[in-house]
Amino acid sequence: MPTEHKLLIRALRGETLTRPPFWFMRQAGRYLSEYRATRTQAGSFLDLCFNPDLATEVTLQPIRRFGMDAAILFADILLIPHGLGQALDYREGEGPILEPVRSVAELAQLRMDDLHERVAPVYETVGRLASELPDNVALIGFAGAPWTVATYMVEGRGSRDHAIVKQWAYADPDGFGRLIELLVTATVEYLSRQVDAGAEAVQLFDTWAGALSETAFRRWCIEPVQQIAVQLRRKYPELPIIGFPRGVGAGYKTFAQAGAVNGIGLDWTVPLEWAAAELQGSNAEGKATLQGNLDPRLLVIGGSAMETEVRRILRILGHGPFIFNLGHGIVPETPPEHVDRLAEMLRG
Amino acid sequence: MPTEHKLLIRALRGETLTRPPFWFMRQAGRYLSEYRATRTQAGSFLDLCFNPDLATEVTLQPIRRFGMDAAILFADILLIPHGLGQALDYREGEGPILEPVRSVAELAQLRMDDLHERVAPVYETVGRLASELPDNVALIGFAGAPWTVATYMVEGRGSRDHAIVKQWAYADPDGFGRLIELLVTATVEYLSRQVDAGAEAVQLFDTWAGALSETAFRRWCIEPVQQIAVQLRRKYPELPIIGFPRGVGAGYKTFAQAGAVNGIGLDWTVPLEWAAAELQGSNAEGKATLQGNLDPRLLVIGGSAMETEVRRILRILGHGPFIFNLGHGIVPETPPEHVDRLAEMLRG
Repeated sequence: MPTEHKLLIRALRGETLTRPPFWFMRQAGRYLSEYRATRTQAGSFLDLCFNPDLATEVTLQPIRRFGMDAAILFADILLIPHGLGQALDYREGEGPILEPVRSVAELAQLRMDDLHERVAPVYETVGRLASELPDNVALIGFAGAPWTVATYMVEGRGSRDHAIVKQWAYADPDGFGRLIELLVTATVEYLSRQVDAGAEAVQLFDTWAGALSETAFRRWCIEPVQQIAVQLRRKYPELPIIGFPRGVGAGYKTFAQAGAVNGIGLDWTVPLEWAAAELQGSNAEGKATLQGNLDPRLLVIGGSAMETEVRRILRILGHGPFIFNLGHGIVPETPPEHVDRLAEMLRG
Repeated sequence: MPTEHKLLIRALRGETLTRPPFWFMRQAGRYLSEYRATRTQAGSFLDLCFNPDLATEVTLQPIRRFGMDAAILFADILLIPHGLGQALDYREGEGPILEPVRSVAELAQLRMDDLHERVAPVYETVGRLASELPDNVALIGFAGAPWTVATYMVEGRGSRDHAIVKQWAYADPDGFGRLIELLVTATVEYLSRQVDAGAEAVQLFDTWAGALSETAFRRWCIEPVQQIAVQLRRKYPELPIIGFPRGVGAGYKTFAQAGAVNGIGLDWTVPLEWAAAELQGSNAEGKATLQGNLDPRLLVIGGSAMETEVRRILRILGHGPFIFNLGHGIVPETPPEHVDRLAEMLRG
């Protein structure tokens, strides 16, 4: 099926569009009353991710309401650890809790064998979305990038300082490298099945890339993402891949120069003139399509504070290949009317 | 008293030294048994900051043990809000708690009148340090930068997302600007007294600069720091000023180009070749002396992981004006032997 009419795919192939496509990270979520209503029909958060009816429904909700140019599969970056057999639980107000993996010995308990079976409902959701989405809306699959997934697997929960995982990564890079290697393999497998089921682009979320110093960033963020991209492209030469290494500052340039991805998600702190000059362009020149980067807090505030910033982003990044997005996910207290106003501005 | 023989001052005036000076953020602190012993002699943390005997003692402890090239006054960035009359309490394990200021009306309760009286013991500590420090050790005074101090004043505590303060700053910039203006004035006053008492350089800690998007970063971080620097230089034309806008990524270049400071503290994520090319040099060319940027976690780990990174930092940043430091403060679980080894490497 040709997809070139979809704006998101065209932008990721390097086209500069007069009306840039848009979608928003965490566009399906608690800020929407219809999401909250669906949420009550599932038991745990994991049940919601693994229920193709409900996961399809919440993925489609924001598309119906706001008409984004892309839907992103509703799932979670920790489904891979779950698929590898690591005990995972989501507790209200606490976030995810995992049985930590902190040594090569503990790593041996994780197995690839049951991965696909354990996450099979996700592939079913992708398949349903592919057939139910409007013809002009692209479907994005996703996974966490290996470093970010590893932070949760090793720490056992969200962490502010990532002390335990950095201890392992810095003091025993060979041992920690085996966890990253396993995650590279599992991520390629997981995303391949998403593509087989109908995902037209994939995004790798590296939420905690900004915790690492330069050398570690190259080794634990850039290299694994490159490996995943190379392996996916062997199977799907045309697949657009978006990387989102959050909080890496000037490291975005190193990331772009590595040339692994078609699109780069920018967090909201990145200066735009710098990004336009140093990062935006074609892969051949060590650059990429840019995606970003409105501060989600401005979407909570709305009004002229939001609108001024939206116009600034479009003015500076609109002259090259670009996808409008936020600099991080929509927060629960966001008024849906503000999202409506933003979508109206972006549809032009 | 001429200070040109002090390595720290020479580096801040733009000299490239064969043996760069070093000090470490939070070099006085809980990782030292002698600090913990002194700490028990004070009641609250605020009592420790306001006791010139004990504050002088803890400032000197790391100098005696490790021979840094600079001592930094032992104090806290929230002494200015306290000096302005805002209720402040430090609770074990919770960090600082303040009675929040969230409107122009609440701002009116804060007064400059008693500032100097309320923080007078700090100036006494500076005076004692100036006379007690070894002749080759520079004395650094400091304050929080207005944005970072404002985050605590408005949120009422440490915050992950800075939702409340960003709400005020983005939605009512004129009102929030009055708080920043007050902090600029108070900071100039506070640092002037530190200089009068013997501080030979000052550092402005902007720990939460990385929370802001580009436009807000210019307005709430760069501009106030510029104003403080201009006003201080009117009184003390030779005073070296170090800015530490943590986590601003490519925004470090904007910060350097503003030309407000002599030295720029780099957090540990900043890529070094980029920093050497884009940020390191003289103020006249929109650059500065660089200071940084070892990941404090590598000081916890020690051994070859730490030593390799220390050599890399010295190799890349040692060819221009440079002060070795960490990318953020020493953490409590740091083994003092690792600090000893690091100091030994740096003394050469």
